[in-house]
Amino acid sequence: MRDAQHPDGPILVGIDIGGTKIAAAAITTEGQLLSRGAMPTEAERGFADGLARIVALVRRALDEARVSVTDLRAIGIGCAGPVDPARGTIDNPYTLPTWDGVDIVKPLRATFGVPVALENDADAAAMGEYWLGAGQGGRVVVMVTVGTGVGGGVIVDGHIYRGVGGAHPEIGHLALDPDGPACYCGIRGCWESIASGPAMVEAAVGQMPGEAAESMTGERLVALARCGNPIAGSIVDRAAQATARGVFSLINLYVPDVVVLGGGVMDAYDLFEPAIRALVEQDTMAPVDRIAIRKATLGNDAGLLGAARIALDL
Amino acid sequence: MRDAQHPDGPILVGIDIGGTKIAAAAITTEGQLLSRGAMPTEAERGFADGLARIVALVRRALDEARVSVTDLRAIGIGCAGPVDPARGTIDNPYTLPTWDGVDIVKPLRATFGVPVALENDADAAAMGEYWLGAGQGGRVVVMVTVGTGVGGGVIVDGHIYRGVGGAHPEIGHLALDPDGPACYCGIRGCWESIASGPAMVEAAVGQMPGEAAESMTGERLVALARCGNPIAGSIVDRAAQATARGVFSLINLYVPDVVVLGGGVMDAYDLFEPAIRALVEQDTMAPVDRIAIRKATLGNDAGLLGAARIALDL
Repeated sequence: MRDAQHPDGPILVGIDIGGTKIAAAAITTEGQLLSRGAMPTEAERGFADGLARIVALVRRALDEARVSVTDLRAIGIGCAGPVDPARGTIDNPYTLPTWDGVDIVKPLRATFGVPVALENDADAAAMGEYWLGAGQGGRVVVMVTVGTGVGGGVIVDGHIYRGVGGAHPEIGHLALDPDGPACYCGIRGCWESIASGPAMVEAAVGQMPGEAAESMTGERLVALARCGNPIAGSIVDRAAQATARGVFSLINLYVPDVVVLGGGVMDAYDLFEPAIRALVEQDTMAPVDRIAIRKATLGNDAGLLGAARIALDL
Repeated sequence: MRDAQHPDGPILVGIDIGGTKIAAAAITTEGQLLSRGAMPTEAERGFADGLARIVALVRRALDEARVSVTDLRAIGIGCAGPVDPARGTIDNPYTLPTWDGVDIVKPLRATFGVPVALENDADAAAMGEYWLGAGQGGRVVVMVTVGTGVGGGVIVDGHIYRGVGGAHPEIGHLALDPDGPACYCGIRGCWESIASGPAMVEAAVGQMPGEAAESMTGERLVALARCGNPIAGSIVDRAAQATARGVFSLINLYVPDVVVLGGGVMDAYDLFEPAIRALVEQDTMAPVDRIAIRKATLGNDAGLLGAARIALDL
């Protein structure tokens, strides 16, 4: 994807670093995607190798967009957390093995001679949906990603909401059900422990015959629920009820203009939406008629675009 | 209480309007209380009558502080909600009968010739604890009041956190337990439905013999729990567990510097604190070593002082 002409004005680069894939894109300050590229992360090859490949990926994205490095204004990075935005370091030995405590901001700044910002990928995705997706126009936008985990980001007045020491909210670890499954977060029954893909699969494994359980995935579970399988149906329903109570709580706490729901599990948004709407309509505390609940629209591009939007503020 | 000398500098007036009592105080811009007075609300006498008495109460507070109206800089009001800070109107036919849709800001502004701000009493109390109480020094301060209801306010960078249309968070209506009691907020098992004084009394009534249940109050229930009564103990314990999960969720969502717990039920903070600390210490998501959890220190003055602090920004 590229513009035939040389684009006018300064150009932003967004980088999205995940456990399996790294993507980079050249984007105008108005949010027009000029080019993009991707490569496997292969973090285990070490950070020096990864950094060199990221530099090459960025150069390729600029070349394809017919942008010279002198037109580059800033680089934004959304990365699978934990990250430290203030120090510019990735601290993620879990999904990015060997990338623990590495500084990605300084070398990119030195190489390209522009400001570089690093953020959590959930915050970058929230920023993307706020800028160009389902959260457009909202002053307070809460994005929740329900997938392998449950996470999210909160945008207030165009900025990423941050707490003490710059820490970002952990939306997926709202306490929803004291009788729910134990989570690594420290409690039972947080949102993630009930509604994430792996949590639903885990619940299925306990209730289904061995062979059906073994090959179970979140997608398969949703497909079974759609076909009327009662066990799959009850598991998806439980996740939908938990998600509804999670959204209800987010609305009462942040009173946002928009709640955006994304992530792999929300590909089946139609199965979740009725429970969410039914519960939120009952909310007598928040001005629910002024609060929009929307499915995310940018898919996997949210982080990439949001990273570029973060760069715009540098 | 009054200063012998004429105070230097501009003076703020804080007004705290509750269902049973209205208080007003003259306060320096550094937070020194110079004088204060109170009177019964008696909202049923009508708003015109109430307004005239509020004006007289403010004049008396200024006189006692030896402050002339020309030294008055601004007036802040914390009022039992719902209120509309943007329009300056009280919309509370529930605890302030006949005070529905009344504009309190304009007449006070006209009378005293200074800026006047109106806020929800929970936000005013949060501002008070932030300014002069348990929340001092925090960038993000969450105050929760557990009493007749569960409510609260959030201060971010010295300002009251507001959502869509200026609406404030409804902290007491976090969804904590899908099997909890039904609440007027629209769901089962919100924080207020489990841990407010009336909720605990309601739970006791269902489990105790008629005569014990009839005379039950929150204070009596706490006293019984302290004496080892197993029913009272289990009810207080359930409220403490819910409060712990509520605080856990607040920490994961707002990642505040300080959580302040106040209100009548928190007079028994020692019965609640162990459950809260035990759960929060398990939180692996938030930087809990940098988050303080504290009992409120200003008691009933929080709203009055916070209202003055709100006036300081006018």
